[in-house]
Amino acid sequence: MSKLLIVGTVAFDAIETPFGKTDKILGGAGTYIGLSAAQFDVDGAVVSVVGDDFPQDYLNLLTKSNINIEGIEVVKGGKTFFWSGKYHNDLNTRDTLDTQLNVLADFNPVVPNQYKDAGIVMLGNLHPLVQLSVLEQVNDPKLVVLDTMNFWMDNTLNDLLKVIKKVDVITINDEEARQLSGEHSLVKAARKIEEMGPKYVVIKKGEHGALLFHQEQIFFAPALPLEEVFDPTGAGDTFAGGFTGYLAKTEDISFENMKNAIIYGSNLASFCVEKFGTERMQELSKEEVQNRLHEFRKLTQFEIELA
Amino acid sequence: MSKLLIVGTVAFDAIETPFGKTDKILGGAGTYIGLSAAQFDVDGAVVSVVGDDFPQDYLNLLTKSNINIEGIEVVKGGKTFFWSGKYHNDLNTRDTLDTQLNVLADFNPVVPNQYKDAGIVMLGNLHPLVQLSVLEQVNDPKLVVLDTMNFWMDNTLNDLLKVIKKVDVITINDEEARQLSGEHSLVKAARKIEEMGPKYVVIKKGEHGALLFHQEQIFFAPALPLEEVFDPTGAGDTFAGGFTGYLAKTEDISFENMKNAIIYGSNLASFCVEKFGTERMQELSKEEVQNRLHEFRKLTQFEIELA
Repeated sequence: MSKLLIVGTVAFDAIETPFGKTDKILGGAGTYIGLSAAQFDVDGAVVSVVGDDFPQDYLNLLTKSNINIEGIEVVKGGKTFFWSGKYHNDLNTRDTLDTQLNVLADFNPVVPNQYKDAGIVMLGNLHPLVQLSVLEQVNDPKLVVLDTMNFWMDNTLNDLLKVIKKVDVITINDEEARQLSGEHSLVKAARKIEEMGPKYVVIKKGEHGALLFHQEQIFFAPALPLEEVFDPTGAGDTFAGGFTGYLAKTEDISFENMKNAIIYGSNLASFCVEKFGTERMQELSKEEVQNRLHEFRKLTQFEIELA
Repeated sequence: MSKLLIVGTVAFDAIETPFGKTDKILGGAGTYIGLSAAQFDVDGAVVSVVGDDFPQDYLNLLTKSNINIEGIEVVKGGKTFFWSGKYHNDLNTRDTLDTQLNVLADFNPVVPNQYKDAGIVMLGNLHPLVQLSVLEQVNDPKLVVLDTMNFWMDNTLNDLLKVIKKVDVITINDEEARQLSGEHSLVKAARKIEEMGPKYVVIKKGEHGALLFHQEQIFFAPALPLEEVFDPTGAGDTFAGGFTGYLAKTEDISFENMKNAIIYGSNLASFCVEKFGTERMQELSKEEVQNRLHEFRKLTQFEIELA
């Protein structure tokens, strides 16, 4: 078992989907990654920042899941990062209604001493300079995984490219891969992104699954076809948490094992979208995850006798 | 080995993609299905109609592939069906520039006597009444597969529903499945379409793969990630030809074997799009198909030890 160090937002979200809307609820990339990785009983920690308006109950959810929160700074008199969004009817696109950075604006991440030797570092979607700062505090991790988004490509591309150069795995969605590489073909896009630094490129296609690229090798994990996607918020982070959580648990960062990690990432993400926010992840049992693994097998595995 | 009866257009296409454009070249659903199914050395026949402007060389391509063309009527003084289209830059959408029905307008399909006992009938995309007429001429086939498109849903829905009621498998794309069922979720869409008649529903998602639904079972075959999709024309028909060709060869119409058929369909479609029109399919060797099968395995197969 490797230690897993996660940096990411811990935040309030207000979400509107065709199925309903929420008040301020628990959200943030760091939260989703942590809850998802916790399925593997990892020795994990989240580095983040919140204001003193953030409920202790929310933090307790992480500690209950055996996720260390020593690295979550609570800023006295500060307000927690808040995001509000509304999904369109297809649930594939959304409008951001409000973003209040609050305490995130001056976030200086501090990695707890006992996680500076983490084997796996998961840099959740955040300002690239915050991600870089975390990397500077750790001692030679076995694997660094970066998640990012188009916002940083639009606004802080040079900083982002510096982080990308230093990581082993990058996870982005298909449109972001096209934007970052300037290539429409995802095969070509992944190759160009590998030249920027990461040895492994994970391209997330939402309901269309995820692709893992490494040199000439490609692996594909479908998303589980669901009767209803209720709320897609946090699906990508949950995927990243499943991916890194499984790798931390198995301590095997080979391409073959990354295939399994991608399947677990898709598996956990398929639960995340079934309810609002983190609700489904909070109640998720290991048995449910194992049962769904069988569904992924049935969905994808075939036996052809060669002619 | 079951006999395979195919009905579909045999036509001229003129295609424009971001990579170039063609003059009038060989096209038509019946052509693509036939060339694809021929990879399995099936005893197959195409029922269609052309004008006497149609080159004998094009028909010879089918006979060379051991596809019987006795059911392709040549109308004296008639002109062959012509379609012209231009793909957008993403190659996922296209504009139809010209459609000249010509001899297709009065097409009365005649099934050759020795294919009336075909085990598998592939109804390629055509007017539903033409598809119905073929069904009325055959004797109790083991499996009837229907391909159709939104054009018939928009213009001849009642006739289309009559055919749908009589078939075992329907293949349509995701947007068409949503239109036909009124459901956004493909899981719900497939269930509704099963209630209309077909026991199996294949939903084609282009570059995002294909789903096979049967009661509570779902199987997914990805599209092979390609460096470049050169020309998507005929990919769906090639998929249908691979699907039915494999089932005809193996004479096994179980869900388990349909999984393999779906993989072969995706396999063959991945070749079709590599060159203009039928060019790639004309030169395709069995060895290339078998090699690509290994790529599909590597792309999708995983081994997770359960916890």
